[in-house]
Amino acid sequence: MTETHDAGGTLLVGFVLFPGYTALDLIGPHEVLVRSRSRCILIARTRESVTSNNGIRISPDMTFRDCPELDVLVVPGGPGQEHAMNDEELIAFIAHQTAGVTWIASVCTGALLLARTGVLTGRRATTHWLAMEELARFGAVPVRERVVWDGRIVTAAGVSAGIDLALSLTAAMYGPTEAQRIQLAIEYDPAPPFDAGAPEKAPNELVQQLRGSSRFALKPA
Amino acid sequence: MTETHDAGGTLLVGFVLFPGYTALDLIGPHEVLVRSRSRCILIARTRESVTSNNGIRISPDMTFRDCPELDVLVVPGGPGQEHAMNDEELIAFIAHQTAGVTWIASVCTGALLLARTGVLTGRRATTHWLAMEELARFGAVPVRERVVWDGRIVTAAGVSAGIDLALSLTAAMYGPTEAQRIQLAIEYDPAPPFDAGAPEKAPNELVQQLRGSSRFALKPA
Repeated sequence: MTETHDAGGTLLVGFVLFPGYTALDLIGPHEVLVRSRSRCILIARTRESVTSNNGIRISPDMTFRDCPELDVLVVPGGPGQEHAMNDEELIAFIAHQTAGVTWIASVCTGALLLARTGVLTGRRATTHWLAMEELARFGAVPVRERVVWDGRIVTAAGVSAGIDLALSLTAAMYGPTEAQRIQLAIEYDPAPPFDAGAPEKAPNELVQQLRGSSRFALKPA
Repeated sequence: MTETHDAGGTLLVGFVLFPGYTALDLIGPHEVLVRSRSRCILIARTRESVTSNNGIRISPDMTFRDCPELDVLVVPGGPGQEHAMNDEELIAFIAHQTAGVTWIASVCTGALLLARTGVLTGRRATTHWLAMEELARFGAVPVRERVVWDGRIVTAAGVSAGIDLALSLTAAMYGPTEAQRIQLAIEYDPAPPFDAGAPEKAPNELVQQLRGSSRFALKPA
């Protein structure tokens, strides 16, 4: 395995799995990065399949214990993030890998797991729009942008933003032409039928409804 | 299970799995539809996990044999579509379900599997930009749009277009407010770092490169 990243090398990209991850947080960036020269692996506590918050069961490739040093770490989010904050083995794995990798990435509330290890303290980062205050509570500097870079750390907004993050990360890893080639291959020319993908754009009633039912809504101030 | 779709009902949405599917073709629309009132299930030949073209192993919920009548059928694409065209059990399952469902959907080259059953004959449909001619060979009327509706059939362009399709389908199933709520929840406010997601927009060199290496490139005229 390489410890440096040069234009000709293959980088090892590890995606962390935990119970209750959001499937698109994982598969969005995976679909992009796996089409680059990267080798992509899924890592979990055991080799058993891990169930997403919505019932998708995905089998990991190796365990935290067996995982070699990565070049890139990608941490998805999802409702399971809350429980994962107290999963010492998972947090230790993330902390260990973040110390050595070239790039650190998170999608959605995966940023909170990164923050839990201290690696985001004082760093600019983003997360799902419903979790921005929670991210600040864990010491990061929340930035309301879709993809936020701070040095070797790149964080994405909610769920679907992981695709945008991965294209940006691919460009950093292998250059913009490679990112564009992959964008064309997955025909990522988005055309949502509505313009309601951010709280600044969606009907206020929906924003309030999601705020009210959010797992972050009842946190003490 | 309901055979009609009313505003208060829960619809049963089935996603077909076959070896070599593209993971984002599946997970993109699943992430949207599973957040609606729909019940979503993954269906495959056996209960064993099914491996995507890029090594993602997902466990199905039931077999073709055990699957009840669906309200909505979603067929993903991927390089495995080619082999799947000759998988009699898969094709028979798709043909049987398409006869009864309220809505039929495909992503990417999943449209070719639909076409294989005859359900797209003479119908407007789309697929991955590299497979448009192949779609015509199977009797459909290819339309170069991201999401194409023809009656109860909705087809999407390549890979990532399944997210746009699913929002459109959710609006048809449960109304536009429900689609917008889900769009906001998954923060689908796309901002690709490049504008290369379609052959009309990407650098011509990349278009030619992907055309040359396409599995559809060597087909006899």
